[in-house]
Amino acid sequence: MKLHLLLTGNELMSGDTVDSNSSRIAQQLARCGLRVTRKVTVGDDLALLGDEIRQASEACDILLVNGGLGPTIDDLTAHALALAAHVALHEHPEASRHVTSWCQKRGFPANAANMTQAMLPVGTDILANPVGSAVGFSLNLNNCLVLCTPGVPGELTAMLEQVIVPMLQARFPHIGSPSTLRVKTFGIGESGFQQRVSDALLDWPQEVELGFRAGAPLLEIKLSINDARHAGLRDQCQRQLVELFGDHIIGYDDITLAECVIDLLKKSSAKLTTAESCTGGLIASLITEVAGASQVFEAGVVSYSNAIKESVLNVSVADLLEHGAVSEPVVRQMAYGALAVSNADYAIAVSGIAGPDGGSDDKPVGTVWVAWGHKENIKTSKLYFPLARKLFQTMTAAVTLDLIRRELSGIKAESRYFASRKVG
Amino acid sequence: MKLHLLLTGNELMSGDTVDSNSSRIAQQLARCGLRVTRKVTVGDDLALLGDEIRQASEACDILLVNGGLGPTIDDLTAHALALAAHVALHEHPEASRHVTSWCQKRGFPANAANMTQAMLPVGTDILANPVGSAVGFSLNLNNCLVLCTPGVPGELTAMLEQVIVPMLQARFPHIGSPSTLRVKTFGIGESGFQQRVSDALLDWPQEVELGFRAGAPLLEIKLSINDARHAGLRDQCQRQLVELFGDHIIGYDDITLAECVIDLLKKSSAKLTTAESCTGGLIASLITEVAGASQVFEAGVVSYSNAIKESVLNVSVADLLEHGAVSEPVVRQMAYGALAVSNADYAIAVSGIAGPDGGSDDKPVGTVWVAWGHKENIKTSKLYFPLARKLFQTMTAAVTLDLIRRELSGIKAESRYFASRKVG
Repeated sequence: MKLHLLLTGNELMSGDTVDSNSSRIAQQLARCGLRVTRKVTVGDDLALLGDEIRQASEACDILLVNGGLGPTIDDLTAHALALAAHVALHEHPEASRHVTSWCQKRGFPANAANMTQAMLPVGTDILANPVGSAVGFSLNLNNCLVLCTPGVPGELTAMLEQVIVPMLQARFPHIGSPSTLRVKTFGIGESGFQQRVSDALLDWPQEVELGFRAGAPLLEIKLSINDARHAGLRDQCQRQLVELFGDHIIGYDDITLAECVIDLLKKSSAKLTTAESCTGGLIASLITEVAGASQVFEAGVVSYSNAIKESVLNVSVADLLEHGAVSEPVVRQMAYGALAVSNADYAIAVSGIAGPDGGSDDKPVGTVWVAWGHKENIKTSKLYFPLARKLFQTMTAAVTLDLIRRELSGIKAESRYFASRKVG
Repeated sequence: MKLHLLLTGNELMSGDTVDSNSSRIAQQLARCGLRVTRKVTVGDDLALLGDEIRQASEACDILLVNGGLGPTIDDLTAHALALAAHVALHEHPEASRHVTSWCQKRGFPANAANMTQAMLPVGTDILANPVGSAVGFSLNLNNCLVLCTPGVPGELTAMLEQVIVPMLQARFPHIGSPSTLRVKTFGIGESGFQQRVSDALLDWPQEVELGFRAGAPLLEIKLSINDARHAGLRDQCQRQLVELFGDHIIGYDDITLAECVIDLLKKSSAKLTTAESCTGGLIASLITEVAGASQVFEAGVVSYSNAIKESVLNVSVADLLEHGAVSEPVVRQMAYGALAVSNADYAIAVSGIAGPDGGSDDKPVGTVWVAWGHKENIKTSKLYFPLARKLFQTMTAAVTLDLIRRELSGIKAESRYFASRKVG
């Protein structure tokens, strides 16, 4: 089964946009055992697109086209498919209903530009778009199934998950499905992981492929088998990994640190609060992005200035003056202040220097004091992440969530965040 | 001048790696006026790679191959080029010296794997690698200049900047350099934009290419010319766009809504505060992600529960009981409460139902009350964004930042956020 991708968009050719869609597509289609063997990208050029569709349809069994379904003049996919198939465009009734009702729900009438999205090659079937106005469509061309999908990532993902993958699974049930276990870890790097596996697990079975995907702040470890009969071997590898790295494992599949912390808080019927200086609301935002966060999170304070640390969080003015905002006593008092304000059981507090300015010899950019823990046992530590501002904030937020995860799970705090880094 | 890219790597096909190299290449080559017209990606397969190189060499003037120069068995580019050109591999003396000295400098002798990197097709010229052990190489094949470059991003960038771009500039001095103006807008969709341009600007010059890039929440509009002599025409188009859409224009290039708001606050020597319920710290996080945010932002409150709205923000219990948390009086009092706590001049407050649960007939998921403005004139409005939780939060945060931007710029509030959407 040969599967090709065709991506279109001037922004992909100019380098203005980094193509993350083809990664999304490859990962979704892997779920029904399909592997992409060739990928072509061209700009928004009708003749080029038409040629590519025709040529690909002669060379593969499934061609997934991505992009060019929007309402503007540079959206050419329907035209190009019509050109390649030597058919006309017509207003597709189902597509037309979708566009009209999509606009209606948003309280405006469909204009001419919107309605161009319903002009499809004669003979195409609709691929429903669960999110946006642009329907996808499919056509059999030269014994190749051509699937046209929207370029907007959220719309593409929804269409892949809800429409295309189920359709392909029903259509090609005989294709084997490689099975991958995805383990999410935090606090250990790829090379360190590989080294410890090589040192400790000398009998790693060939049938279980070990893969990595580094996606800051988490590292995903993948255990893949191509044959269901090797599931036992994979389970054995998984058990060995848990023994070696158990305290670093957040969970499986797409879990985030915030989701893991929220689950643990729910299990303890406990609530968390935050007092953030240098992360400026990022930790609260990561938590409240998760549905159901309100069960475990009631309040957070973004206390950028000393005045707020004092007035809202009750931090001692004397300590602010004597030790500075980025200090142990201040971050500890911030945590207690947030607990008092929110009536929560657990707290995270951070105060640091995100940069690029504001550092000193004593406290260079990247220095951050964190406080975390149960209201009866707040712990503190100094960290040092000499990273660009945004990455510094991301790492600091992740580390504090991981510290609370360890606290709630009864695992000791990861010492390597602290010990192996020297300030200055 | 036709320029094609060929990328190789199994990790690009599986979706484990997002290809950022082709964006790098396109942006670097744009500096010498070259545009990538076609991009093909295949896995590490010798026959496929050889075929692609041969076919591309017949179809274009310059073929840039990226990846497959490393020392391991899946690095096949030299082999594939030799196959396509019907020549043998030999140990290239200059490449051999580079590999040997690269290893020497790092204190180890070159091993057999290292030395495979010096085995190149007969007739190739070296492209120096200023960083890594893998030299690049070039060959004229079917009147096409084939350039083979390393896949490691840092090595690729150094080779492009220091070797390939200067070489191409010297070789093709007659090529013009295209120039693109990137305008960032908010609050208008691609189809609405296209429609208004089509209706109002009947005399749009052919020499100025109009392009779009939708990146939630902003829409980027691109005006491109291929010849510097058309700069006047582009300026004229820009002026027309400003007339039509001026109030939607945030700024140029990579500016974000938060950066725009921070700039405006700095100009007014004013400070902003936030009181967030359903956005849970996202607005504060977007602001504090920007370097220098501390000049204009001192404090924000994430007030998820009614208790906090009452205790920290001084929202009236009676109003909370009578109107509910998602209501005009509550969001207005949240704004005033945040102003009182922070001593800021401007405030943003939001209270809404992010979902997926918590909606009612009266206030369905997606309903949000926002308050914004100067401390002496806080305005409020009800919005409705029936979107998935994260997108709802993104849109709500963007709209509030845009409302403050309009307030600070003396532009009227965009009514379409409100008027054209019906709740329920």
